[in-house]
Amino acid sequence: MTTYGFLGLGIMGGPMAANLVRAGFDVTVWNRNPAKCAPLVALGARQASSPAEVCAACDITIAMLADPAAAREVCFGANGVLEGIGGGRGYIDMSTVDDETSTAIGAAVTARGGRFLEAPVSGTKKPAEDGTLIILAAGDQSLFTDAGPAFAALGKKCLHLGEVGQGARMKLVVNMIMGQMMTALGEGMALGRNCGLDGGQLLEVLDAGAMANPMFKGKGQMLLSGEFPTSFPLKHMQKDLRLAVELGDRLGQPLHGAATANESFKRARAAGHADEDFAAVFRVLE
Amino acid sequence: MTTYGFLGLGIMGGPMAANLVRAGFDVTVWNRNPAKCAPLVALGARQASSPAEVCAACDITIAMLADPAAAREVCFGANGVLEGIGGGRGYIDMSTVDDETSTAIGAAVTARGGRFLEAPVSGTKKPAEDGTLIILAAGDQSLFTDAGPAFAALGKKCLHLGEVGQGARMKLVVNMIMGQMMTALGEGMALGRNCGLDGGQLLEVLDAGAMANPMFKGKGQMLLSGEFPTSFPLKHMQKDLRLAVELGDRLGQPLHGAATANESFKRARAAGHADEDFAAVFRVLE
Amino acid sequence: MTTYGFLGLGIMGGPMAANLVRAGFDVTVWNRNPAKCAPLVALGARQASSPAEVCAACDITIAMLADPAAAREVCFGANGVLEGIGGGRGYIDMSTVDDETSTAIGAAVTARGGRFLEAPVSGTKKPAEDGTLIILAAGDQSLFTDAGPAFAALGKKCLHLGEVGQGARMKLVVNMIMGQMMTALGEGMALGRNCGLDGGQLLEVLDAGAMANPMFKGKGQMLLSGEFPTSFPLKHMQKDLRLAVELGDRLGQPLHGAATANESFKRARAAGHADEDFAAVFRVLE
Amino acid sequence: MTTYGFLGLGIMGGPMAANLVRAGFDVTVWNRNPAKCAPLVALGARQASSPAEVCAACDITIAMLADPAAAREVCFGANGVLEGIGGGRGYIDMSTVDDETSTAIGAAVTARGGRFLEAPVSGTKKPAEDGTLIILAAGDQSLFTDAGPAFAALGKKCLHLGEVGQGARMKLVVNMIMGQMMTALGEGMALGRNCGLDGGQLLEVLDAGAMANPMFKGKGQMLLSGEFPTSFPLKHMQKDLRLAVELGDRLGQPLHGAATANESFKRARAAGHADEDFAAVFRVLE
Repeated sequence: MTTYGFLGLGIMGGPMAANLVRAGFDVTVWNRNPAKCAPLVALGARQASSPAEVCAACDITIAMLADPAAAREVCFGANGVLEGIGGGRGYIDMSTVDDETSTAIGAAVTARGGRFLEAPVSGTKKPAEDGTLIILAAGDQSLFTDAGPAFAALGKKCLHLGEVGQGARMKLVVNMIMGQMMTALGEGMALGRNCGLDGGQLLEVLDAGAMANPMFKGKGQMLLSGEFPTSFPLKHMQKDLRLAVELGDRLGQPLHGAATANESFKRARAAGHADEDFAAVFRVLE
Repeated sequence: MTTYGFLGLGIMGGPMAANLVRAGFDVTVWNRNPAKCAPLVALGARQASSPAEVCAACDITIAMLADPAAAREVCFGANGVLEGIGGGRGYIDMSTVDDETSTAIGAAVTARGGRFLEAPVSGTKKPAEDGTLIILAAGDQSLFTDAGPAFAALGKKCLHLGEVGQGARMKLVVNMIMGQMMTALGEGMALGRNCGLDGGQLLEVLDAGAMANPMFKGKGQMLLSGEFPTSFPLKHMQKDLRLAVELGDRLGQPLHGAATANESFKRARAAGHADEDFAAVFRVLE
Repeated sequence: MTTYGFLGLGIMGGPMAANLVRAGFDVTVWNRNPAKCAPLVALGARQASSPAEVCAACDITIAMLADPAAAREVCFGANGVLEGIGGGRGYIDMSTVDDETSTAIGAAVTARGGRFLEAPVSGTKKPAEDGTLIILAAGDQSLFTDAGPAFAALGKKCLHLGEVGQGARMKLVVNMIMGQMMTALGEGMALGRNCGLDGGQLLEVLDAGAMANPMFKGKGQMLLSGEFPTSFPLKHMQKDLRLAVELGDRLGQPLHGAATANESFKRARAAGHADEDFAAVFRVLE
Repeated sequence: MTTYGFLGLGIMGGPMAANLVRAGFDVTVWNRNPAKCAPLVALGARQASSPAEVCAACDITIAMLADPAAAREVCFGANGVLEGIGGGRGYIDMSTVDDETSTAIGAAVTARGGRFLEAPVSGTKKPAEDGTLIILAAGDQSLFTDAGPAFAALGKKCLHLGEVGQGARMKLVVNMIMGQMMTALGEGMALGRNCGLDGGQLLEVLDAGAMANPMFKGKGQMLLSGEFPTSFPLKHMQKDLRLAVELGDRLGQPLHGAATANESFKRARAAGHADEDFAAVFRVLE
């Protein structure tokens, strides 16, 4: 039976690793702060003392780390992934990182004789717990096939998008659309309120028609209440818009709408809403 | 039992009147070209020879006309609504018209002793046939209550939005959001394709996440196929964006995103896509 | 010798009429508030009691009125221009009005047997006093020729732009460019200051290079001082941007830059700067 | 008497070095392709065989190189500036480079005991020949003072802007304004032409008023003729707009106008106008 390693047991990684254990896989975990391993061990996981040890022991090692810096450190650092990977064993980085980081990690893993997939996810805490993430995988096709049963335990949808880097790019494109949808909703609510329409009724109309979507429902409530508890921080959305616009620049793709949304998010960031939910862009639209 | 009149038996009005007849209401119809009355009469409707005759004979008369010019002609013209309305009878204009037209018609009907509701709908041919329109009513509250059973046969959702004019404004706000969502999807598809992502996979990812909505599904297929059979003409979407931006102007509400989308739709209109579906804005984004 | 009438002796009209008198022309003046005629009479002008009387007595009557409403009133009102014009006598409206107003006045004057020119000006109080206005004339070519000596006393430059309406359109295009130049300067000053550059030095660099222009010099000082004494009110600039964008809409000309500037001016208007100089758009850019 | 070195004798550097020699300074030149030294030697300059040799021999060495890569190579490469600089001698880099390159070179020069100024210029071939450049210096104040007489021979205006990096930033801000002015002129010409105005008359009106500037005059002729011989390539303008927008991003400064202009220039780049003059943005505005 395929054995799995799991690196990073934070808000996302913890429940994901637990889902693997509960689904009956043989899982070895590691976390920078080892205290977070206890609940997983209680569920039946083994514990290892370094990424290298995990990668050397397991057929496939999955990582879910906080950011590109953490992803690089766990891979390239002392007792890191590169010191344990090899012999055709697999490494799947599910962290949200830029395409350069993915490509650098992938090249190093491959050079050591390992197989590599980047596999960022769409979805946050709740889908991680429910095993309903959307997995945007790219890279080694055979590893994608081998990891299929694990992906099935982690997500409701799993796509192979091509070469390493395409996972990161798909996330950027999706977030770029999301940023524009948010400003569209925000401008609509602002205009509606200004002409005396009821915000709740506007949301009701939207929810009954062809544009109905869970995001409008969730963020719409934030706009009505004027409170923006952070699910996805505004500064991260603005960063993704910036990166998407820059990607368009490299490819010769003008993006008038995304560039305009980006400036509105910048204004919101400058106005002190960087750490609120990205729906707080409404504050500078109204 | 309340008797109903129905003026205008086009693509929308025909199936709507049929739904009323099938639901058991006593319905008298009129259409400029009387030939279109035959199918309704076959279903059990009566036929009248002018809007005035319908309004004089029925408790509540509903109109579904092509545009503001037609709505004005049927109301103010010879043998028009104003010559038959009065005595507290109701007139409900469900055509899509601007708030000035609504207000003018409403004032004239009221001055003649009638009651008035504007009630534009969200939804096109299919929901009209299925009786699943969204009805955006505004105006006389008692008429709104009296017409409740008829609205229930025509739509799945019916809201009272306030004074006459608010129905037209709600439609404008909703369409403004829709225009921006369309450019967001179009820019995302263009960027994705430019960086080698598969358009079908992008739509699949969108459809699996929090932004999933019927419009992306429908218009997404148009973008993939490169064909834009007209459901809602691009020139009408652009007109609505222009009107929304102008409404914002009057109210002192800046709308950077909507103004930018408006310019992209203008570019598409100038490039010869005015009569295609509004998804054809993609042609000038890619 | 050609005799001249002059209607409207406000901030612009007063000095313009004085320049005509000082240049030796035979001038008859009228103003709604007759008290303003006294200084002109002291200079040697005659005074009349109505626009009709002026137009009946003079070969060519020039008007310089506050806005389209005043221009229409003076033309179409009781004892107005139409009651005195005719017999090939000329009427030149130098007020800043929209092309519809110009066209309506022109058609009425022509129908009475008069000749008509619209001739809005570029330039404000100082150039009016100095006789250095830029005159944007359109309409009757023979009247343009006949009025040449008077135009020479009023402006430093005089162009004939075509049919009635082209004067108004030229002004709109010029102001649209000006609005965008103002936001360009404002964004540059804001960015420069944010990265620690000295605003005065930035203006000095601009003034030494290919972009050097009197407007940057004048408005630049306003940005430095943070005070915006009104030369051209922000609300008027925003109105012109709106009209230019709408003109582009009718002609199928997308204007991404102008539409974006328009939204920034709207934001400034909504933020309470409507009556300050249009340079105050800086307040919402910084 | 202060002795001067000059590195880089291209389109800009050649005439600049010649101006120094003609002004009577003792000048030693170097160029990668030594053949270009001959005309300078004919004028009275000495010739050296490497940047290191120049920097070791001269009190102040000026460089005018093609791009950041060349600037780095000449400084950090074999027999480069760093191998000759020291002892309080000065190095002035007048190449157009980003602030990171400037800062890196400045730090290295200072660490070797040299003094450093960045001094990019505003102005192209003609002002370089005429000695009428605008010099945007930043860095060592004493070197700025010592080099004053040389700057006087090279430019008509010379400013000290602060710490190293501020020269590059000032250039970015100035070019950002220029890019927006260009799109403003282009949109104005496009709209004017669309409503039947004469482009030459529009330029005449602009040139007579408060917005009159040499750039509108020069670029305006390009728009009229439809030919765009390259003075400043469109791709470089677009790069500067991108860098300015990114600078705004780092500083929390939204720039709706610049971001919009950037997208228009991107569209022009993608449409094949990258190597034409930046006035060719008109091609995608009309």
